[in-house]
Amino acid sequence: MITVNLIGYGNVASHLLTAFQKTDSVKVLQIYTRNIPENLPKNTVFVHAIEDLEPADVVLLTVTDDTIAEVSENLPFRNRLVVHTSGSMNLKTLHEKNRRGVWYPLQTFTKGREISLKKTPICVEAEDEKDLQLLQTLAGLISKEVHVISSEERKKLHLAAVWGNNFSNHLFHQAALFLEANDLSFELLKPLLFETVQKLETLSPEKAQTGPAIRGDHNTIEAQLHLLPEGIQRELYTLFTESIIQTFKNERLGKKL
Amino acid sequence: MITVNLIGYGNVASHLLTAFQKTDSVKVLQIYTRNIPENLPKNTVFVHAIEDLEPADVVLLTVTDDTIAEVSENLPFRNRLVVHTSGSMNLKTLHEKNRRGVWYPLQTFTKGREISLKKTPICVEAEDEKDLQLLQTLAGLISKEVHVISSEERKKLHLAAVWGNNFSNHLFHQAALFLEANDLSFELLKPLLFETVQKLETLSPEKAQTGPAIRGDHNTIEAQLHLLPEGIQRELYTLFTESIIQTFKNERLGKKL
Repeated sequence: MITVNLIGYGNVASHLLTAFQKTDSVKVLQIYTRNIPENLPKNTVFVHAIEDLEPADVVLLTVTDDTIAEVSENLPFRNRLVVHTSGSMNLKTLHEKNRRGVWYPLQTFTKGREISLKKTPICVEAEDEKDLQLLQTLAGLISKEVHVISSEERKKLHLAAVWGNNFSNHLFHQAALFLEANDLSFELLKPLLFETVQKLETLSPEKAQTGPAIRGDHNTIEAQLHLLPEGIQRELYTLFTESIIQTFKNERLGKKL
Repeated sequence: MITVNLIGYGNVASHLLTAFQKTDSVKVLQIYTRNIPENLPKNTVFVHAIEDLEPADVVLLTVTDDTIAEVSENLPFRNRLVVHTSGSMNLKTLHEKNRRGVWYPLQTFTKGREISLKKTPICVEAEDEKDLQLLQTLAGLISKEVHVISSEERKKLHLAAVWGNNFSNHLFHQAALFLEANDLSFELLKPLLFETVQKLETLSPEKAQTGPAIRGDHNTIEAQLHLLPEGIQRELYTLFTESIIQTFKNERLGKKL
């Protein structure tokens, strides 16, 4: 049995709580958060003062990136294993009075939307070998994808996640705005979006690339540019077209980007 | 029973053939293609000469965009219903000696990868009302999403599809190249990509937007820019960041893009 305390109770914490509660091998002892929710989740103990946290095997800090340093410095205990859950912050952001680690689930969490973590990579890091093993065990109880990842590597993974999630979502947003401006429904596009990602199961994005840019179809490119309003949408279209052409040209030349 | 002939036998045609063969209400009579495949799909008749095509209710042209005009002009028959399957080409690209229509499945098709067309929007258009009804009936036999869409609207839908499919796939490609260059596996990113699209079932892309740009987290943005090599990846990162900030600023101001 691994005991866990949670500090902070936002989106990530509530999803982790759900996952932990599904295994008999993890016990979430207490949760500390400044604003205790009105509807308490089942079988949980929320504490009003951080001093009330009893020792647990792992203290999971799920606070925002910019408060990790301060919150970890102000913890009223020492020498416990304290880990943050951020993609972009170095392990050393945590104050050194406690044993430090990172436990980063590489996933996007949506309030009210349950998601299986079985395939979600959990990136773990710790200064102490035994702590690392414990974090691996904890991760292995809810996911099949446990990876030891350094702070440097994690920073890069997080950047790739910004491309894969934030930027692609923004593309969908722009497509939705464009359709809306032309009285067409974004719903029409969704099956295509699902399949675009699903096909990555069997095909690399390199092999999956299609469209006017990779075909070098300048007539369609010109026609499409003129359908877009001047401004950011046209800039994005132009840069993507350029980038697709350039990327495949470089690959043919065997250049690494 | 609706009878169909196919002209051209590429990726789209083979997927449509599979879908048509699953319903008893469609009969694919003959398929004409310049290069007849070595392994013929079951229960099909390929013809070597276009003159051998017998009359069918619908002649589906699945040739490339830039050959639609020529192929349709050279058809050795008149007054049949001939429809193309392209997203970007006007109905009038087809030669007027036949009755014209469009039957555009808004989806990305991958060779060897079967896909259910039940939810795939099929956009139909025809000059004649009876022809339009026939195309709707044919589409309704394999999809629940049948939409009458004009050539003008379809062109815009196709542009949105370029954003949603080609451009997002290119983002995944860039993320894969970046990870590869840093000895990290693209596999780690896939569960995030799946969930990014899956969550659109319950959340608009506007509401789903997260990340450093929308948070205005300049420290992370600066740090991430420096992880990227100079060149197109940095340009894309910069433009996306700008676009996300600008889009949400405009939305707050109630401006339409």
